[in-house]
Amino acid sequence: MNKDIILRLTRYKRLLYKLKALGFERVFSNNLGDAIGVTPALVRKDFSTLNLPGNKRGGYNIDMLIERLDNLLGRDQPQHVIVVGCGRIGTALMQYSGFSTDGIEFVAGFDIRPEEVRPPSTIPVYGMDTLEDFIKEHHIKVGVIAVPDTEASKVLTQMVEAGIRGVLNFAPVELKCHNEECHSNCIIHNVNIALEIEHLFYQVNAKEAGEEEDGNCAD
Amino acid sequence: MNKDIILRLTRYKRLLYKLKALGFERVFSNNLGDAIGVTPALVRKDFSTLNLPGNKRGGYNIDMLIERLDNLLGRDQPQHVIVVGCGRIGTALMQYSGFSTDGIEFVAGFDIRPEEVRPPSTIPVYGMDTLEDFIKEHHIKVGVIAVPDTEASKVLTQMVEAGIRGVLNFAPVELKCHNEECHSNCIIHNVNIALEIEHLFYQVNAKEAGEEEDGNCAD
Repeated sequence: MNKDIILRLTRYKRLLYKLKALGFERVFSNNLGDAIGVTPALVRKDFSTLNLPGNKRGGYNIDMLIERLDNLLGRDQPQHVIVVGCGRIGTALMQYSGFSTDGIEFVAGFDIRPEEVRPPSTIPVYGMDTLEDFIKEHHIKVGVIAVPDTEASKVLTQMVEAGIRGVLNFAPVELKCHNEECHSNCIIHNVNIALEIEHLFYQVNAKEAGEEEDGNCAD
Repeated sequence: MNKDIILRLTRYKRLLYKLKALGFERVFSNNLGDAIGVTPALVRKDFSTLNLPGNKRGGYNIDMLIERLDNLLGRDQPQHVIVVGCGRIGTALMQYSGFSTDGIEFVAGFDIRPEEVRPPSTIPVYGMDTLEDFIKEHHIKVGVIAVPDTEASKVLTQMVEAGIRGVLNFAPVELKCHNEECHSNCIIHNVNIALEIEHLFYQVNAKEAGEEEDGNCAD
């Protein structure tokens, strides 16, 4: 399966859990399409590719969809995640209650000065010297990096060497696989918030410049 | 210019500022390419498309590149941003010091219970009833949404009606333009952290399943 379909399936699933919580039992492809921003035909094509039973007129049984999607996407057990770097962004993520409903569980934080991290919740915060042992002992596969940009690459190497296979990086630096031996096993997603905001400004400014050239057609 | 080239230019620029801070005066296309993960040839093509002077052997003058990129990307004045929803994620963003070096300035936060927001810094937090006036008076164009998913759509409408043209959405719900009249002017980027983590788990699990089928070729 390619990345696009996985992302759509993940979105369907999240939406289905919310609909189920609202008491829905069936759902139609056009509702799902509207909600996640694709055509109903694509929703039906995705479900038919995956042999999920249902059709345009009768709709789909939500419980059955959820069961099949959970199997496909591997949601049988809670997904344990660690956070390295417990500054503002790191602790905000650890405490973000939206995750628990998605089966994602933050099990520990790591910081160079764990004693200075304001106790955020019931999630323990340990020193960096225990990071590798923790990852190995608890078979942690996915971790979040929220350290300063100057530390990010070193932390990535430590994590991957201990067994981490997937990293979500919030440090404002593009992390990639430098070392073939060590990093070829690791998938890295970079979330650069400053870059996102700068990009928005550029798009907004470019759009406004275009509108001024076209004359005042709004309002 | 399409989105890909804008994103690359933004990345070049951020990197150039860092190199300048380190005392660099010139930079080569292969260094830039390595750092942002593209080929040196593409770096040179981007710069040549934009008439940026320099070449493969002599490299590029960093000050000149920064000046031209700042002009192109609109960095003459600080970019004012507001945050709506001052929970953990919202306040973490407001206090994130990485932004100031990018010319991005958070000027205010808004919350339904501003008096309960722990004073994060020198950035004021106001009640939601002042949101529209603030946006209009200060000509704010870009805002961050960090409210619960159930409130996100309503907040988006309020912001767009007051004049916001670009939104970075951290609420765990996909925001889009429902109302043609009101939203066609607004560019929305969704950052769904839970979705990113789920997607990572899926990729990691799929990769491990593939490796098991291939036999143990690692270590």
